[in-house]
Amino acid sequence: MPEIEFTKGHGTGNDFVLIPDPDGELELTPDIVAAICDRHFGIGADGVLRVVRSAAIAEGAQAAEAGAEWFMDYRNADGSVAEMCGNGIRVFAHYLTARGFAQFPEDAPLRIGTRAGVKDLVESEDGFAADLGTWRRSGLEPTVRAHRLPVARPGLGIDVGNPHVVVALATLDELAAIDLSAAPDLDPVPAEGANVEFVVPEEPLVLDGVGRIRMRVHERGSGETLSCGTGVVASALAIRYYAGESAPDEWQVDVPGGRLGVHIEAREDGEHAWLSGPAALVFDGTFTF
Amino acid sequence: MPEIEFTKGHGTGNDFVLIPDPDGELELTPDIVAAICDRHFGIGADGVLRVVRSAAIAEGAQAAEAGAEWFMDYRNADGSVAEMCGNGIRVFAHYLTARGFAQFPEDAPLRIGTRAGVKDLVESEDGFAADLGTWRRSGLEPTVRAHRLPVARPGLGIDVGNPHVVVALATLDELAAIDLSAAPDLDPVPAEGANVEFVVPEEPLVLDGVGRIRMRVHERGSGETLSCGTGVVASALAIRYYAGESAPDEWQVDVPGGRLGVHIEAREDGEHAWLSGPAALVFDGTFTF
Repeated sequence: MPEIEFTKGHGTGNDFVLIPDPDGELELTPDIVAAICDRHFGIGADGVLRVVRSAAIAEGAQAAEAGAEWFMDYRNADGSVAEMCGNGIRVFAHYLTARGFAQFPEDAPLRIGTRAGVKDLVESEDGFAADLGTWRRSGLEPTVRAHRLPVARPGLGIDVGNPHVVVALATLDELAAIDLSAAPDLDPVPAEGANVEFVVPEEPLVLDGVGRIRMRVHERGSGETLSCGTGVVASALAIRYYAGESAPDEWQVDVPGGRLGVHIEAREDGEHAWLSGPAALVFDGTFTF
Repeated sequence: MPEIEFTKGHGTGNDFVLIPDPDGELELTPDIVAAICDRHFGIGADGVLRVVRSAAIAEGAQAAEAGAEWFMDYRNADGSVAEMCGNGIRVFAHYLTARGFAQFPEDAPLRIGTRAGVKDLVESEDGFAADLGTWRRSGLEPTVRAHRLPVARPGLGIDVGNPHVVVALATLDELAAIDLSAAPDLDPVPAEGANVEFVVPEEPLVLDGVGRIRMRVHERGSGETLSCGTGVVASALAIRYYAGESAPDEWQVDVPGGRLGVHIEAREDGEHAWLSGPAALVFDGTFTF
């Protein structure tokens, strides 16, 4: 029977099976990925990260040319192909450097290829940071209802490569009380759906130049999760927008799975959002299928 | 950092981390067990099965005397100590024999020590079978309500070492429709709670001498699960009781995680219930903590 060597890792509870396949020899069918990610019959994870050399696969050609030796082939738990994952790429960078596949360059970021383009990774005080690229307001401003949220509230649409709607709540009690076992209702319904973040500012919102918020998230197609990297970034950006011109560029976001940081960097092509935080490798294993 | 070698296995989706510790040297604290069983931050499982020689630990003394070389030290996912697990002990027997720790004797069952006494295991056509011991009606006959169950229905209390209430439903549609994300309401409320099984007979109920039912279960403290060994046995026993004297002693029970068998054997000390079905070892790993 064929065997797959793997490593299990997570970033604030967003968890992944990493499979080294430097030369792109492994055929990961949707069925195999779904079997691997099953939490009772398989290994269990939110997704699979295949670790492959950009030059070894057709869709990595552009990344190889741009100087990204490694490509993150990300698959969702249902076996479908995905473009990017903010926590996933931080775990991926940890794996590459911890296992000797790559090193962080002295004076430049480590570049990693993804289906959403080449991403920059650096070591950060709190672990590993990824440049998730530019953001924009999507124009969505739906009214949001959720089970056990006493009144409907306005949402703000933020696009960070995927669509988010961020809802500011008044108190931590209100945040704790909402039931996200069902998807929140958005009115009007966005054509492609959206991840929905519920956010409460800490008191005070800004301390020592850092904006501080707490968040829970309902992800399209996944339900409530412990952490969502792009959702964390969208939440910080939405509250920063609400807070106006004096708002800081550094944010600390507490999610059910831990704490993440967001850093906004002004660049020629617009404001880039960096996501930072811990990444852990939990165990190594051999899977027979 | 200390390392733990382990194997992950499951029986109809009821999943376990098996940790070999023949000489009883490992100190498995509740914190370590809970960390291992966490599905996002750890390995992920319904419980831990420590594989230890009965003679190596104080609570295995009686089992060692009764000829059970190996003891199943079963822990719940929250780290608490548990007595027995019908699917767990079948996976345990598979592990012992597949990894060369023990063999099935030619003409007798393999005996395994547990906190609920020594259990007999045999190979079966469908995998591995365990004698879960005698059963009795508990006397509980509560009225049961569940979300999306249109009317309240009577439950029948069955004790197979732990308490169950079995509720017969009319159709597969009714079984599929109920929402077990919340615990069913029992009236009166049993003092120690109960696992609640919802059961539908197949059409016809008995085919070629085998009774056939389909079941979903809500486990005390765990919520809905893919499979519950004692719940499967309790369900077969309840429907066999309702069906009267002509009812068979062989049952086939379909649960969300697969198919299990129940065999009722008349013995001097009463009717014993055997649970049979598949057991799988999925992957081997090394966990660092």
